[in-house]
Amino acid sequence: MIKKAAIGCLLWGLVLPMLSYSKTLLTAHSDGMKYRAEQVADGLAIPWGMVFINDSQVLITERSGALKRLNLLNGKVDTISGVAAVFSEGQGGLLDIALAPDHQKTGWIYFTYSKPIQERGVTALARAKLENDRLTDWQDLLVTQSSSDTTRHFGSRIAFDNEGHLFFTVGDRGVRPNGQDLTTHAGSVLRLNLDGMVPKDNPFVKQQAVLPEIWSYGHRNPQGLSYDLKNKRLWLIEHGPRGGDELNLIDAGKNYGWPVISYGKEYWGPLSVGEATSKEGMEQPIKYYDPSIAPGSLLFYTGDAFPNWQGDLFAGALKLQHLNHIKLNSAGEAVGEERLLGDLNERIRSLTQSPEGWVYLSTDSGKIIRLMPEE
Amino acid sequence: MIKKAAIGCLLWGLVLPMLSYSKTLLTAHSDGMKYRAEQVADGLAIPWGMVFINDSQVLITERSGALKRLNLLNGKVDTISGVAAVFSEGQGGLLDIALAPDHQKTGWIYFTYSKPIQERGVTALARAKLENDRLTDWQDLLVTQSSSDTTRHFGSRIAFDNEGHLFFTVGDRGVRPNGQDLTTHAGSVLRLNLDGMVPKDNPFVKQQAVLPEIWSYGHRNPQGLSYDLKNKRLWLIEHGPRGGDELNLIDAGKNYGWPVISYGKEYWGPLSVGEATSKEGMEQPIKYYDPSIAPGSLLFYTGDAFPNWQGDLFAGALKLQHLNHIKLNSAGEAVGEERLLGDLNERIRSLTQSPEGWVYLSTDSGKIIRLMPEE
Repeated sequence: MIKKAAIGCLLWGLVLPMLSYSKTLLTAHSDGMKYRAEQVADGLAIPWGMVFINDSQVLITERSGALKRLNLLNGKVDTISGVAAVFSEGQGGLLDIALAPDHQKTGWIYFTYSKPIQERGVTALARAKLENDRLTDWQDLLVTQSSSDTTRHFGSRIAFDNEGHLFFTVGDRGVRPNGQDLTTHAGSVLRLNLDGMVPKDNPFVKQQAVLPEIWSYGHRNPQGLSYDLKNKRLWLIEHGPRGGDELNLIDAGKNYGWPVISYGKEYWGPLSVGEATSKEGMEQPIKYYDPSIAPGSLLFYTGDAFPNWQGDLFAGALKLQHLNHIKLNSAGEAVGEERLLGDLNERIRSLTQSPEGWVYLSTDSGKIIRLMPEE
Repeated sequence: MIKKAAIGCLLWGLVLPMLSYSKTLLTAHSDGMKYRAEQVADGLAIPWGMVFINDSQVLITERSGALKRLNLLNGKVDTISGVAAVFSEGQGGLLDIALAPDHQKTGWIYFTYSKPIQERGVTALARAKLENDRLTDWQDLLVTQSSSDTTRHFGSRIAFDNEGHLFFTVGDRGVRPNGQDLTTHAGSVLRLNLDGMVPKDNPFVKQQAVLPEIWSYGHRNPQGLSYDLKNKRLWLIEHGPRGGDELNLIDAGKNYGWPVISYGKEYWGPLSVGEATSKEGMEQPIKYYDPSIAPGSLLFYTGDAFPNWQGDLFAGALKLQHLNHIKLNSAGEAVGEERLLGDLNERIRSLTQSPEGWVYLSTDSGKIIRLMPEE
């Protein structure tokens, strides 16, 4: 026993100095729990998406097109090769990353990115496998019909329902009529089987003038998507125009109204966007933000580390530089809102939950920060 | 015995008048064989593609978007519902039709068409099943990246290699640089597995800036495609500019030169198109046509009805209004050419071979005509 304890102490003696690459930024309270915000990496270039591939390693997409792997045991970042060519102009580039629900068995990692097609970017969904320091077996599963001459509003976040489907978002590509145009993937949430095929029960598969991948439409630029497995709810947050960011609960075949209805105003003056704020046949948001916060991500929290956050949503705010905490009740109503980490003055881009239930976030300044319970 | 003969006579007495819907247009000779051209249907609207689904029934696509079924026992034509919405402007519409090699087992019928996307047409590949008078299970397998603001050069013909792959063609969409642009499907032959997935041995799957469906490129508007199963040769015929139609033998990853090399001239004057007629790294056609014939189809003939035609190619000529017969030798060289049916003064659009080895063709005037051996 004494021997084992001695070895344990020796190991901790080795491990603790290795952990010293991290630094505490602040401590604060939320929902009666104390948390610590700790920086674990720096120097990344617009880290857009993150996913844990095991207890200690995070894959991070950089919008420029690079894929990085952060080792949380020593803070080292290395580069993974084999990413497809990306269109990295404006809001385009390498976007989200997510693990297949059956990743343990299949090895598939999913990506969204803006693919260069005729010198424009179009939102695409792909998957690949990680083999040491490189991606293999890259497959484009859907290169969407969403070409536009702007470099704006590609979306794009991925979520899984763990029932064999994935969802991903495509922004309106800076062309407002796309929101209501079902002959384009722009302005929509798409639903596919994990192999990229169209599920037979998608809402528009029988309507032959409609692209069959469409699950919901009338979206402007959804950059947050997270699935509540327990209640089978798909949550989405989207950039609206000025004063019109929306949190939406997504149902099959529904029209979320953009650009016909919106709570937003035109950027150039006091005029409202669209016809009204509501209309028959179009869905209302669960919550909207005026002024806009510019949400770049959405996380449905399920971890044990912060029990009082279970079943709540978090959104990273780019423009209003904070972590938005949305308190949900069991009916799926937004009953409260809290703004965390405002003191960091950081554009918060992506969010993920670690295996132990800590919340990891990335900033446009290139940092990876985690929220851990503070004893 | 007498009784049986009597019944036989009675049946012929019933059947013969039913066959009288057909009419002989001409008889002539080719390769030492006498043939008869017989009209079996009329009144179709630009019949673009044809396929036999059994010994007596032909499915016929009309460019406008309708699918028809011709019953050769009585000459009746009925309409099949369930075709997807098509973009039927200019050269766009419902295009080719082909039976899966495993159609007996799976029921799949493949289609190419121009799909309406944001008020433009893009070439798409789909499949569906026939159930009585309607198509079911319509699946878009690939909506190509080939949007342009023209209504020209969609392609598109389908061929199978019977080894689990299909090929289909996409024209340059009236945008010449597309021929050499591997970030667009326009101006290419594409190769897919029968379920629409990209075969792992496609030539460009490892080149991540290239669309992985591409099998060959540098094409202008290929509207004829036929696979020689015995010699494993993929034959293609394409509309060139004035004086530049080309018959090409297609190999994986090859560049067929459009618009850099061409035998054609600009429509508006004597200027050659492109840099030259040949260039290092670009393929030469097996044959070119000056003046252009405007080939709308290609058939590799394998039937028993005309033994001397076995292993030859036929192309329907739209502009020069004839059936082009290309004599091939066993090395795949074009050793002779014959122009049939010129007296009909018909734009010949599509070609197919019937189970008994007769050659069926359609005309833009709406007729279905067959070539049968004349005793």
